[in-house]
Amino acid sequence: MIFSSLLLENAVNEFSKLPGVGKKTALRLVLHLLKKDKAEVQSFSNAITTLKEDIFLCSRCKNLSDRPICNICSSSGRNHQQICVVENVRDVIAIESTQQFNGLYHILGGVISPLDGIGPDQLEINSLVERVGSEKIEELIFALSPNIQGDTTIYYIGKQLKEHPVKITTISRGIAFGGELEYADEMTLARSISNRIAFENYVGNGKL
Amino acid sequence: MIFSSLLLENAVNEFSKLPGVGKKTALRLVLHLLKKDKAEVQSFSNAITTLKEDIFLCSRCKNLSDRPICNICSSSGRNHQQICVVENVRDVIAIESTQQFNGLYHILGGVISPLDGIGPDQLEINSLVERVGSEKIEELIFALSPNIQGDTTIYYIGKQLKEHPVKITTISRGIAFGGELEYADEMTLARSISNRIAFENYVGNGKL
Repeated sequence: MIFSSLLLENAVNEFSKLPGVGKKTALRLVLHLLKKDKAEVQSFSNAITTLKEDIFLCSRCKNLSDRPICNICSSSGRNHQQICVVENVRDVIAIESTQQFNGLYHILGGVISPLDGIGPDQLEINSLVERVGSEKIEELIFALSPNIQGDTTIYYIGKQLKEHPVKITTISRGIAFGGELEYADEMTLARSISNRIAFENYVGNGKL
Repeated sequence: MIFSSLLLENAVNEFSKLPGVGKKTALRLVLHLLKKDKAEVQSFSNAITTLKEDIFLCSRCKNLSDRPICNICSSSGRNHQQICVVENVRDVIAIESTQQFNGLYHILGGVISPLDGIGPDQLEINSLVERVGSEKIEELIFALSPNIQGDTTIYYIGKQLKEHPVKITTISRGIAFGGELEYADEMTLARSISNRIAFENYVGNGKL
């Protein structure tokens, strides 16, 4: 692309560094912003810089937070003896949006994956083990990716905690709601049969 | 979506105002920026605000420019008697990228479209007519959208200029290079036959 303006070229280059944004999309976004009021552009740009400058990682659950301890960890209305262990911030948002979970979270920052060079020390595993002891956690619910890396991570953390009287569960795997049996892979279908649920439990849709 | 942080929510909302960016994409982009260095985020945000604050519209061709008169209009190496009339900034970038055109541009800001409430007065038509007179333009090449609105605009401007001895041309319409005949619409195919080109002209690929 040949630009008539260095300022324009610079802005397009910055936008095209974002994941999934090519040069043409970047140009479209930049021209869109140019059409907006100065105040709107300023508020766009401020939202990004203040986010970067003022955000905290919650010292307990490692979630993004406006304060040193996040809203969820400091809420008195939640079950502080139950921790849902997830990989990243997006997973917390997804689970919170279901409004079905009322405990706390712990964000590992990923799963153990030796091929990608990610071992237990790169993850927030030690801090989780410590929390289980110091906060008298009764149940850890693992909501990790349903693959070998996720299962390895659960197994590893389980081993670290074998001295603690904490209950370890995982979210259920099975056929997605609205999914069709014939398109499910064999592994999922096989597990959904061996982990079948009594119908009276299935019907209930109460809070945890 | 339920966020753990107002700062995060705010940034996601700002991003999701961009065209074609939904909440999930916005969240992905914001989390990507959060992982970057403070300096990188600052340069992203600066690129946008300085663009908005410091950019000019070239007083001659109405293109985006770093100075009151753009690089193209002030270049001595270009043909100042030839103007390519386009709808927007993106069209200039597209034509410049072909490196086949060495004249100047004029950006109308759209085409005449009564249904969308866009008449000649909302467009840079008067300034074009003025340029044709004051700059002794020899040829106007229209590169507008190939539709009724584009044709109407060419017709309207042509009428304004009937006193001037300026040659008016349009970019050729026809079957796209690499396109397949059987998928071309009838209108395009019909025009490509009636506007057929002598083979010796077709082969040549010289500069205008």
